[in-house]
Amino acid sequence: MPSYRAPVDDMKFLITEFLELEKQSDLPQFEEMSPDLVDDILTNAAKFAEEVLQPLNQSGDEEGCHFENGVVRTPKGFKDAYKAYCEAGWNSLGAPQAFGGSGLPIVLTMAIAEMGISANQSFSMYPGLTSAAYSALAATGADWMKQHIVPKMVAGEWCGTMCLTEPHCGTDLRLMKTRAVEQPDGTYRLSGTKIFISGGEHDLTDNIVHMVIAKIPDENGKIYDDLSTVNFFMVPKFLVGEDGKVGARNGVSCGGIEHKMGIKGSATCVLNFDDAIAWRLGPKPEPRKEGQKTSSSAGMKGMFGMMNMARLGVGIQGIAVGEVAYQNGLSYAYERRVGHALTGPKEPDQPADLLIVHPDVRRMLLHCKSFVEGARALAMWSMLNMSIARSNRAEAQEAGLLADLMTPVIKAFFTDMGFDAANMAMQVWGGHGYIRDNGMEQFVRDARINQTYEGANGVQAMDLVGRKLGRKGGAAPMALFNAINGWLEANGGDALAPFVKPVRDGLGTLQQSTMWLAQHGLQNPNDAGAAATDYLRLMGIVVVGWMWARMAKLAQENLTKGTGNKAFYEAKLVAAKYWMERMMPECAMLHQRIQAGSETIMAFA
Amino acid sequence: MPSYRAPVDDMKFLITEFLELEKQSDLPQFEEMSPDLVDDILTNAAKFAEEVLQPLNQSGDEEGCHFENGVVRTPKGFKDAYKAYCEAGWNSLGAPQAFGGSGLPIVLTMAIAEMGISANQSFSMYPGLTSAAYSALAATGADWMKQHIVPKMVAGEWCGTMCLTEPHCGTDLRLMKTRAVEQPDGTYRLSGTKIFISGGEHDLTDNIVHMVIAKIPDENGKIYDDLSTVNFFMVPKFLVGEDGKVGARNGVSCGGIEHKMGIKGSATCVLNFDDAIAWRLGPKPEPRKEGQKTSSSAGMKGMFGMMNMARLGVGIQGIAVGEVAYQNGLSYAYERRVGHALTGPKEPDQPADLLIVHPDVRRMLLHCKSFVEGARALAMWSMLNMSIARSNRAEAQEAGLLADLMTPVIKAFFTDMGFDAANMAMQVWGGHGYIRDNGMEQFVRDARINQTYEGANGVQAMDLVGRKLGRKGGAAPMALFNAINGWLEANGGDALAPFVKPVRDGLGTLQQSTMWLAQHGLQNPNDAGAAATDYLRLMGIVVVGWMWARMAKLAQENLTKGTGNKAFYEAKLVAAKYWMERMMPECAMLHQRIQAGSETIMAFA
Repeated sequence: MPSYRAPVDDMKFLITEFLELEKQSDLPQFEEMSPDLVDDILTNAAKFAEEVLQPLNQSGDEEGCHFENGVVRTPKGFKDAYKAYCEAGWNSLGAPQAFGGSGLPIVLTMAIAEMGISANQSFSMYPGLTSAAYSALAATGADWMKQHIVPKMVAGEWCGTMCLTEPHCGTDLRLMKTRAVEQPDGTYRLSGTKIFISGGEHDLTDNIVHMVIAKIPDENGKIYDDLSTVNFFMVPKFLVGEDGKVGARNGVSCGGIEHKMGIKGSATCVLNFDDAIAWRLGPKPEPRKEGQKTSSSAGMKGMFGMMNMARLGVGIQGIAVGEVAYQNGLSYAYERRVGHALTGPKEPDQPADLLIVHPDVRRMLLHCKSFVEGARALAMWSMLNMSIARSNRAEAQEAGLLADLMTPVIKAFFTDMGFDAANMAMQVWGGHGYIRDNGMEQFVRDARINQTYEGANGVQAMDLVGRKLGRKGGAAPMALFNAINGWLEANGGDALAPFVKPVRDGLGTLQQSTMWLAQHGLQNPNDAGAAATDYLRLMGIVVVGWMWARMAKLAQENLTKGTGNKAFYEAKLVAAKYWMERMMPECAMLHQRIQAGSETIMAFA
Repeated sequence: MPSYRAPVDDMKFLITEFLELEKQSDLPQFEEMSPDLVDDILTNAAKFAEEVLQPLNQSGDEEGCHFENGVVRTPKGFKDAYKAYCEAGWNSLGAPQAFGGSGLPIVLTMAIAEMGISANQSFSMYPGLTSAAYSALAATGADWMKQHIVPKMVAGEWCGTMCLTEPHCGTDLRLMKTRAVEQPDGTYRLSGTKIFISGGEHDLTDNIVHMVIAKIPDENGKIYDDLSTVNFFMVPKFLVGEDGKVGARNGVSCGGIEHKMGIKGSATCVLNFDDAIAWRLGPKPEPRKEGQKTSSSAGMKGMFGMMNMARLGVGIQGIAVGEVAYQNGLSYAYERRVGHALTGPKEPDQPADLLIVHPDVRRMLLHCKSFVEGARALAMWSMLNMSIARSNRAEAQEAGLLADLMTPVIKAFFTDMGFDAANMAMQVWGGHGYIRDNGMEQFVRDARINQTYEGANGVQAMDLVGRKLGRKGGAAPMALFNAINGWLEANGGDALAPFVKPVRDGLGTLQQSTMWLAQHGLQNPNDAGAAATDYLRLMGIVVVGWMWARMAKLAQENLTKGTGNKAFYEAKLVAAKYWMERMMPECAMLHQRIQAGSETIMAFA
């Protein structure tokens, strides 16, 4: 049975040293943050994840969710754990104090989210989506919703969902059929079928607040195959009056749950909206008229805010499952005895040495560590940028661009790497990894969805290449290249050279690839499409490489000064070297692939 | 629900054109082979796989095997399908005619095996292991076994297993505890526990013949933690007399079946041997004496023969699951509509274009095709070498070396790539790929075991680097390099240059890496261990690249002459180009990784 120890030390290192917490007190939500507070919160969250959530992970997978007569029952123990989770305040950490939250910055709430996911990805999806939903509702909802609904969600009394996908379309939301018709009282009647709705129905809370996109028909009742009439709605399972009073059951019901490869404790629902009462969020749209040209939709904006949060959260899922799989691969390697070290027995008194003596096993485990810790640093850096973007600092705009640029990288690169890490850790277990009782294969099955949902990784790559790179004249990649270059120039010296040089080379390659894309992608968009996945990976490898170089610097400084935990910093240097030696060489290859263009791929019949 | 169409055209192309069937009639088992016979057999096997085996794949996964009171029941339909399989003669195709088989060469029997695996990997493991078992028994058994037992197995009336792994050891068989004690009548009494025994117990046949390795204790009843006393035994579930009469139940029972990530229709059994009557196979060993030095064991040899066949078979599983997943990814891409082509709508009358218009989707599918067909060519080439090795040709010895060298590459590289292909095909399905009903995720779960069993892929890499490279002064890699070089020198010309050049570069890199390993691996074995996985992949990419260059040449010739199916050869050229443009660039990166050595990896604590 797998176990989990939250990486509190690494998170503390990242927040206090790597992000230099003490220098950030001018940022929103950072006023009260201190190393002690960070320590305290992380330690308590770790305890909860390890002791309450993790023990339900394997049983939740084995049992799955139950569906009967429209009612969904979560696996045994989930309901009590959810209650304890909310009571301990984990659900409300990041919410503004005005809504009953603790107002903590995202670098801290995401660290805690990571722990929850490592311990139990399925469970963590219920509060995870709820917090994305309450954030969206707080940003776009009417005052009475902020007064009566958001606080309930912040407290965890009610859960939230996000409803986008329909049976015939997920990526291509233009084809959505769900419609919302305005009523004289200003509400809407919403009808249609949404699928793959995580937590669409369950027994954790009395009410569920669905955040839904739907199209408003034109004057003739017609809907269009484009995004022009898409709007963002709130549809509670039980109606809520403007006075906060909970009323009758709304016209939304669960038509069934999916049987999936993994995340079986998370109820993935078909939701049927049948004249459900819906409240439009955001500004009132101009009704579209027959024959009118397509106009852009304001309604997608609210959902995009939610989606960006969710994408970041999925990237964290990539790290989180990688982390817990790695831990359990490592502990098996220190338990199982197989053969002898290639240089002669390490323990001659034993019939065989531990698995950990074998270079190939070490390679797989170090790969996991190097990914998990490097990715965590990048996620943290990106989330600090999100806070800076909301501050009054001069670099606020640049920070926003960087965070925006990193979102598809974090989502796609981290979930690809997280899936690989889960597979490598399972591979360390040999045939025993394939046996369900041992719990390793669950990590692989759970991690697999992360590459697909919230925009499949290929869609993320197209978002990066097709939207994020070129926006504002390429300001975002420019800001990134400048930031890395600035750091490289400021950090010469022999000791850091093994880290600075590969990152400099990688950055050069990334810039060349970016140039190639700029030149060819406009001439032939298929060249951009064919290159997108490799380009995203290239950017991920280079930026994580930069994170490792920065962490290596801190490690060297601490080791020189003799401060802190020596073993911790030494291990950081080893993992940093791994990334330089074994991941950075991919850059040149990816650049070659990118330059191959689209001719062959488009010739494929 | 997935479907399957056996790639008969590709297999015919490979056997008749690529392997030049007409020039091979001097080889053992090739005398009767003709294009017509090949066509006939492949067509009929395809029909059986598509119509009988494939429809049971998903239901078999859903239902799994049942265990009750020591009895194992296979999923619904398996028993009838197995009966039909044997009656149609598919089980006996490769067996010598003396045993009731058809005596067909392995290039043909493995093609048919591939179809069975694509259609139903779990089902195919029962006859697959049976044929490995009857081959081993025919090679090592006594005359009465060849007379009474092998024919029953060839006919499929009885199944066979291979029993190696024990609870505490799989890779490190030195630690085996199962013991066999000689009896006055020359038989042995065998006791111990074997785990992960595929088809160890089931309801397909009346009898099961277990091929078991166990240790013969020394005069004091002691067994040693080495391979010196390991012997190879036959242990039938129901005893068989030397007259062929079936007697009482033997002392072997099934203690349970494993609940696994995939291949759920294949019963993975715990087998308890409790004073089971066992027949030693092969020459009688010298009994080991207390205090004696370790001597090598003859008993492993028989099992190694079986293991090599099984490893080849697992490599074919990599291809097979890749193929069927690819087919179903492709068909979805021609069904599902998402967005518009980047260069403007392909079907302006439709609300959206087909998924296949998108470069990134095409990239994933072409990757699968390029792997599957390239790997199939390499497998076929290697199996032809196995036949040549058994012939009187001058190049027999060299062919044997090449086939031996390719075994770990086929096992590990093909199963890694097959797993990736299954994942890519599933990714094409977006979120729908994660839903069990759609059958795509089963391919991923089934394909995952192939990387692990019959020697985890890391063990294969160590076998390649630690054993196969250096044997006979490096004769095997030398033979490979010469063969590729010879072909490259004989095939210049502008038309082939896009294929010849990358293979020449790749070969150069492979030779450099081989040299590096020779120099560093002896000085520091950990350098070899740290490089092994990357080296195996490098060799796989280069050799498959060579196969693609050779197929490209045939395609170009046919297209120039206007012979054969134009679309087929054009598609071959596209897939060949894909390999050159997107896989061959990995070579330089892998070489860089190899040269990184083991220092960082061994520093990992």
